[in-house]
Amino acid sequence: MTKLNRRSFLGASIGGALGASGLIAGEACARSTPVPAKWDRTVDVLVVGSGFSGLSAAIEARTNGAEVLCIEKMAVIGGNSVLSAGGLASPGNDLQVAAGIKDSPELLLADMLKSGGHLNNVECAKVVAYGALDAYRWAKDFLGVKFDRLGYQGGHSVARSACYMNGNGANMIGPMTKKCREIGVPIETRTRLANLVVDDKGAVIGAEVQKGYAFPKENSGKKVMIRARKAVIICSGGFSQNVKLRMLHDPRLGPQLDSTNQPGATGDAMQAAQRIGAADVQMDWIQLGPWTSPDEKGFGVCPKFVESSVGYGLMVDPKTGRRFVNETGNRKVRSDAILLTGHPAVLLVSEANIKHVPPSTIEAGLKNGAIRKFADLGSLAAAYGIDAGALGKSVARWNEAIAARKDPDYAAKIFDDTVPNEGTFYACRLWPRVHYCMGGLAINTKAEVISTDLAVIPGLYAAGEATGGVHGMVRLGTVSIADCLVFGRVAGRNAARRAA
Amino acid sequence: MTKLNRRSFLGASIGGALGASGLIAGEACARSTPVPAKWDRTVDVLVVGSGFSGLSAAIEARTNGAEVLCIEKMAVIGGNSVLSAGGLASPGNDLQVAAGIKDSPELLLADMLKSGGHLNNVECAKVVAYGALDAYRWAKDFLGVKFDRLGYQGGHSVARSACYMNGNGANMIGPMTKKCREIGVPIETRTRLANLVVDDKGAVIGAEVQKGYAFPKENSGKKVMIRARKAVIICSGGFSQNVKLRMLHDPRLGPQLDSTNQPGATGDAMQAAQRIGAADVQMDWIQLGPWTSPDEKGFGVCPKFVESSVGYGLMVDPKTGRRFVNETGNRKVRSDAILLTGHPAVLLVSEANIKHVPPSTIEAGLKNGAIRKFADLGSLAAAYGIDAGALGKSVARWNEAIAARKDPDYAAKIFDDTVPNEGTFYACRLWPRVHYCMGGLAINTKAEVISTDLAVIPGLYAAGEATGGVHGMVRLGTVSIADCLVFGRVAGRNAARRAA
Repeated sequence: MTKLNRRSFLGASIGGALGASGLIAGEACARSTPVPAKWDRTVDVLVVGSGFSGLSAAIEARTNGAEVLCIEKMAVIGGNSVLSAGGLASPGNDLQVAAGIKDSPELLLADMLKSGGHLNNVECAKVVAYGALDAYRWAKDFLGVKFDRLGYQGGHSVARSACYMNGNGANMIGPMTKKCREIGVPIETRTRLANLVVDDKGAVIGAEVQKGYAFPKENSGKKVMIRARKAVIICSGGFSQNVKLRMLHDPRLGPQLDSTNQPGATGDAMQAAQRIGAADVQMDWIQLGPWTSPDEKGFGVCPKFVESSVGYGLMVDPKTGRRFVNETGNRKVRSDAILLTGHPAVLLVSEANIKHVPPSTIEAGLKNGAIRKFADLGSLAAAYGIDAGALGKSVARWNEAIAARKDPDYAAKIFDDTVPNEGTFYACRLWPRVHYCMGGLAINTKAEVISTDLAVIPGLYAAGEATGGVHGMVRLGTVSIADCLVFGRVAGRNAARRAA
Repeated sequence: MTKLNRRSFLGASIGGALGASGLIAGEACARSTPVPAKWDRTVDVLVVGSGFSGLSAAIEARTNGAEVLCIEKMAVIGGNSVLSAGGLASPGNDLQVAAGIKDSPELLLADMLKSGGHLNNVECAKVVAYGALDAYRWAKDFLGVKFDRLGYQGGHSVARSACYMNGNGANMIGPMTKKCREIGVPIETRTRLANLVVDDKGAVIGAEVQKGYAFPKENSGKKVMIRARKAVIICSGGFSQNVKLRMLHDPRLGPQLDSTNQPGATGDAMQAAQRIGAADVQMDWIQLGPWTSPDEKGFGVCPKFVESSVGYGLMVDPKTGRRFVNETGNRKVRSDAILLTGHPAVLLVSEANIKHVPPSTIEAGLKNGAIRKFADLGSLAAAYGIDAGALGKSVARWNEAIAARKDPDYAAKIFDDTVPNEGTFYACRLWPRVHYCMGGLAINTKAEVISTDLAVIPGLYAAGEATGGVHGMVRLGTVSIADCLVFGRVAGRNAARRAA
């Protein structure tokens, strides 16, 4: 009886763990939920998450013959993917061909490794680089996603991003959910993965989920035990919205920082995988966007304003009135520098230097108050509480750099059409937001999850932002979308082909 | 019976896991060993590892009243610490006072955060910075460690490293083992932690160890169950010698790279903690030494040759005959650049420029063959298979930089006494070695281990290189020793004071 009691206790303590969204006091040990006497439901493949990677995995598993269930803890389908404002990096796509741009998987791989500081899992990066074109064709031809233009993103050698209509992620999630309906993949929202169930051999055979879960209410929903004959696939995205978890890995990223992500990006499905032994990798590489303003919500309009103003205007620390970083440096350089000052920076640019900012952006920013217009530098200084003398000196020195076409202080780029900053100014405050998690669950090229003992965990797959290794230190824009589609499909295919 | 059978199976599968030194195929899930019906032995505190952190923890736990057992899997006491060639960073130590050097914990903390890229767990870094002086006094006055000089290490604002005699780590391990004997702390070598045992509440209550373990024989030794009434403390060092584990986190660090560490630095005790749910942090920050030569073993004499030659001579890629990196850049900059070429670099310096290299170093290097002497540049080029024309151009351009006292290509430092490189040359080949793991088990300021669910794991502590967070991206020289003593003592004290 003692032993049986202990087993019962284990079950109870995991029931308790369920209640805490991964922020549990008291329950510490890695354990799976006991195998139930009776399952409430049985499928072949259970997909956790309904963003690009989850729906790709679900569709691919279904088209490979598996009975699939896709669960989504939030009330709406699409996760962060519906917020995506990008495209799909795919070397050799027809938009490139039409534009006469030469590209290759090798070149994409080289760009990924360079940007990733060569910390990438090279074999996994190869899977994405060599699989991206097929993923694009699959999205276009099989799913019917409409791509309307070729986009260029910093860090890529060439323009290679096939952009879905209006650069709106919903225009890819839409065709994906339609395909799910057509081929018979139910997507059940408000259903959260609470714990994975493993068998005697350590293989994942199912999950305990909360049906009717009302994010963020920890104990909401009804406990349902789902058997997965073949596999569970974790496609739950990153953890940008989980302040405690991101602080464990990068202690700078406290509650003083918002995130551009949807609120459900808390990483709790990833933690469920860790409770049964999954390893994580490179969790400390969390990308911040340096171009968000504390004066507007979410992504806002400031990013577009900022990216069209750097190399023209200057950014100062309002406490000193001085520049403190290369304004044309990469996201990490700028975010780190702003964080280090401990307060928002001020970007200022004269009216003659905003020629590349879309007028609609200025208009929207002036309307929501995140961008402000000033008749002269003095009124700008007064508005932001900057020492006017110090600011005047900084602007004069930056104007000298513009005249010399060389920045002796921070080596910022100065463009051919950059002119001295004087007269009327536009300005905004900038404070980084947590944007993307490069790290996550350790996987191999088959999308199988690896344990902390470096073994494959049978029956457990993962794809997309929930995984780590593909991008190394820094992800390139639109390669995450390729990652989601390519590895989502790899996971779905391998899960479906697994012996039940 | 079904349930009981499953329990038995769990036990068996963990017995299997025991055999694999953390590289297990098939056994994947995080599980602890079942509580035995009968323990073979009982202590208050079990310390795993006998380096600086382990012995500090053991001594402190004992002097706080606990019955302590220290186990060491290797045949000798001391782990990597006996290889340490440094000292103890301790702001305000008497050697600094005698030298008239002003220092403070605040200044050490600032240096740690700067070097750590502010990725440090600031609260844990503070524990080290503010505790280092007391740790030094404890070592000197209570243990009787002799410190014979003040050392300076790159990245520190001032000289603050109290060096144990001859900069030999054995001269601190010796007094520590003597103290253990005096106060009654048995240190049992050839005894390996196989698995931790947790109770129903997830608290660590003991361990399964292999007594008579013969590294690296996986299944060697006899299984012994040790109850730890109060706590287990993991002080097992890093994983620089575990190629697969380091490649999981930094895929560049394959078998083509040796390590400066003792062979037992494989991280398997850390993995045992992970099997019961411990989180790791910043595992991808692994420090390489750029100054080791493939032409000699271990640490060798080349590091001293190299560090006294940079800023005087130049380093080239033998495939191109050209410079490729700032030779006076930090360890990471240089190591990353050499790794990226894919083969050893060649450092060359003229006889007139080796004035700061100890003659004994040159002598030892010439004797073991790692350093070579050439009458002229042509014979050097021929010996290393470098294109003589390209090498000649590189040396000429570097000599121009010396004349201008400014390196236009890589901004390397050029010293006041650097002279043009010509005539007789000394040279060596350089290929980095894996040196130190900044990452490891997640702990809090009490040295309690944190789970992947962000909870404290009751009864489990860790200290030293087995933990992550104190150093952030890059550890400063001799701060690791302060970390070991300070956090070893914190762990030992808190473990001893814990209710049994």
